[in-house]
Amino acid sequence: MDDRDLHAHLINQQGSRKSLNTPVLLIDLDAFERNVAAMAALAKASNLRLRPHAKTHKCAEIARRQVAAGAVGVCCAKLGEAEEMAAGGIASILITSPIVSPQAIARLIKLNDRIPDLQVVLDNIDNAKALAAATTGKALKILIDVDPGIRRTGVASADAAVALAQTIAALPGLNFTGVQYYCGRQQHIEAYAERRTEIIDRSDYMRGVIAALTEAGFAPGIITGGGTGTHRIDIELGLLNELQAGSYIFMDRQYNECDITGQGAPGYDTALLIDARVVSANTPGLGTIDAGFKAMATDGGPPTVLSGAPAGAAFHFMGDEHGLVLFGDASPPIGEIVTLAVPHCDPTVNLYDFYHVVRGDTLVDLWRIEGRGRSR
Amino acid sequence: MDDRDLHAHLINQQGSRKSLNTPVLLIDLDAFERNVAAMAALAKASNLRLRPHAKTHKCAEIARRQVAAGAVGVCCAKLGEAEEMAAGGIASILITSPIVSPQAIARLIKLNDRIPDLQVVLDNIDNAKALAAATTGKALKILIDVDPGIRRTGVASADAAVALAQTIAALPGLNFTGVQYYCGRQQHIEAYAERRTEIIDRSDYMRGVIAALTEAGFAPGIITGGGTGTHRIDIELGLLNELQAGSYIFMDRQYNECDITGQGAPGYDTALLIDARVVSANTPGLGTIDAGFKAMATDGGPPTVLSGAPAGAAFHFMGDEHGLVLFGDASPPIGEIVTLAVPHCDPTVNLYDFYHVVRGDTLVDLWRIEGRGRSR
Repeated sequence: MDDRDLHAHLINQQGSRKSLNTPVLLIDLDAFERNVAAMAALAKASNLRLRPHAKTHKCAEIARRQVAAGAVGVCCAKLGEAEEMAAGGIASILITSPIVSPQAIARLIKLNDRIPDLQVVLDNIDNAKALAAATTGKALKILIDVDPGIRRTGVASADAAVALAQTIAALPGLNFTGVQYYCGRQQHIEAYAERRTEIIDRSDYMRGVIAALTEAGFAPGIITGGGTGTHRIDIELGLLNELQAGSYIFMDRQYNECDITGQGAPGYDTALLIDARVVSANTPGLGTIDAGFKAMATDGGPPTVLSGAPAGAAFHFMGDEHGLVLFGDASPPIGEIVTLAVPHCDPTVNLYDFYHVVRGDTLVDLWRIEGRGRSR
Repeated sequence: MDDRDLHAHLINQQGSRKSLNTPVLLIDLDAFERNVAAMAALAKASNLRLRPHAKTHKCAEIARRQVAAGAVGVCCAKLGEAEEMAAGGIASILITSPIVSPQAIARLIKLNDRIPDLQVVLDNIDNAKALAAATTGKALKILIDVDPGIRRTGVASADAAVALAQTIAALPGLNFTGVQYYCGRQQHIEAYAERRTEIIDRSDYMRGVIAALTEAGFAPGIITGGGTGTHRIDIELGLLNELQAGSYIFMDRQYNECDITGQGAPGYDTALLIDARVVSANTPGLGTIDAGFKAMATDGGPPTVLSGAPAGAAFHFMGDEHGLVLFGDASPPIGEIVTLAVPHCDPTVNLYDFYHVVRGDTLVDLWRIEGRGRSR
């Protein structure tokens, strides 16, 4: 790691976890390694290509570890993240959102020249034409994004998918390689049976889209999608041949509340933590910690208090810098460390430049989050 | 600006605003300059020291412009932000949250040696002792933080303030210089009269604390606090002699909904914008833009659509990368630029490395957000 990177806020990077400046984003390396190995083993046993979504971690070191464990490459949500993963040595990248502006398309073509296997989704005929017009020598691999009913991205019908495949086939410079469908809304349905019912319904719809494409002469080689919440169901149903799950490496409060395995368990271990410190405690039973909106994304609600206060203690956001923890009868001493499980991992990671990687209470590494803020 | 800083995501930094990669955080320089000048003039006319809160912008260039316009220095919420402002040439900094860990206290003492005028708040006797024990040559200026009833930080009573002042006075290395009280909860009360009633009540309480301190021989020289929401009322009441307002430079949806002036107007102009692009539009009347949880903090609710779609069009967050805009009857073309006013400026700024500074539709500068992520 470059010395220039070790700013003052990263001092005490060696030694005890307890001596770190707070708030600090931690990876519990033992739990992380178990998660990476478990998903890799499951994908292998299921004869499924694993392409973990790097929007969860935004970190080339983690992407390299996932590939070393058997992943075929990674997904990236945005072009900027893909550029960072490519710079970090990842040779196979799927960009899971459409790239539409002339500026971004020019960068996409450059990236396609730089790595062996770049793929990008699209859902629009004009966009297909713009991409084709920008290609230079090497063809660009294209997946058609199919909307499973979220109305976020993706073609809205089998007919639209076929029309788009015909357009792609007629354009020089584009190679149609498959389809993507991501059931984002279903990932966090807490009850397994309810989630399974919905995924069966959406997979039936997707089978129809694939049948229409196949009938028109565009049988998709790659059928990519799925997430941490639904991957066991996706494996059971057997429609996908490539899995995009990402959050399993860390888990977060939202996924910990889900019965992911169908056996009442999340299936993976909490590996992403925040250590914060009590900085004020002038009201009996309350402690103010140094973690607020700047330390955690708020779209997923409050974090879970794991230790340093009674486990499961209530947490209330108190603005940009602070959170209030209910300690019960006793007030905490100033400086007490409170450990939190994050509410929603992806946008929380987007607030930090580094992971502080720990085994037990020892800091063993710093991993740069190269993709942080690279949302364009 | 160092060439190393111009990553691929910052290409097209010259020329038209419309050619920028999106999502992009913009400062409307005309509006920004009006806001900076207006608050500086008001503070001067009111014989009030202006110490704008840099937690809003986290940017040394903006801090330097505020000082050039008459500010005595800036406030910082966290030590890491203060270190960045000091590195950027700001000579007078007040840290508005307690600094408690041994590691952070060591950094604080170093910072005190580095700049002419560092001040820090505290609210705890043990913390006062720890700070005193760490000072080396130069004394550390201390303000007592008084809780106006938020229960976030601050002493909880006049008696506690006096006891703390006595402790500070008895310790070598600490100079008691004043008090801070920040009525955070009241800043966003939309109706002026209701906000005024509450601030009158809280100011009466604070007068009692100041009287108790004065009677005990600790008359505070500095009485610092206030914010964009209450500063007109603070000026009317005359209790503060230093004003910490920060958000006035940018404004955001939350403050735009407040009658800040008492005359039905926010009083400052919207100067912080996000340009995003439509990346998908397969459902009539809907457009998906490339701005979600990674582009805007969500604690303040949705952003306001200003242009590119019908003004005031509804916005729904669609996950980490995307937002859905309701366009009404027509569907937007792919690539259409949609301009948003941010919901809550401080944590939104914390997501970006640079401001793209525009006059009208021309990009005129890039300002680094040095304090982004420096929350420890």
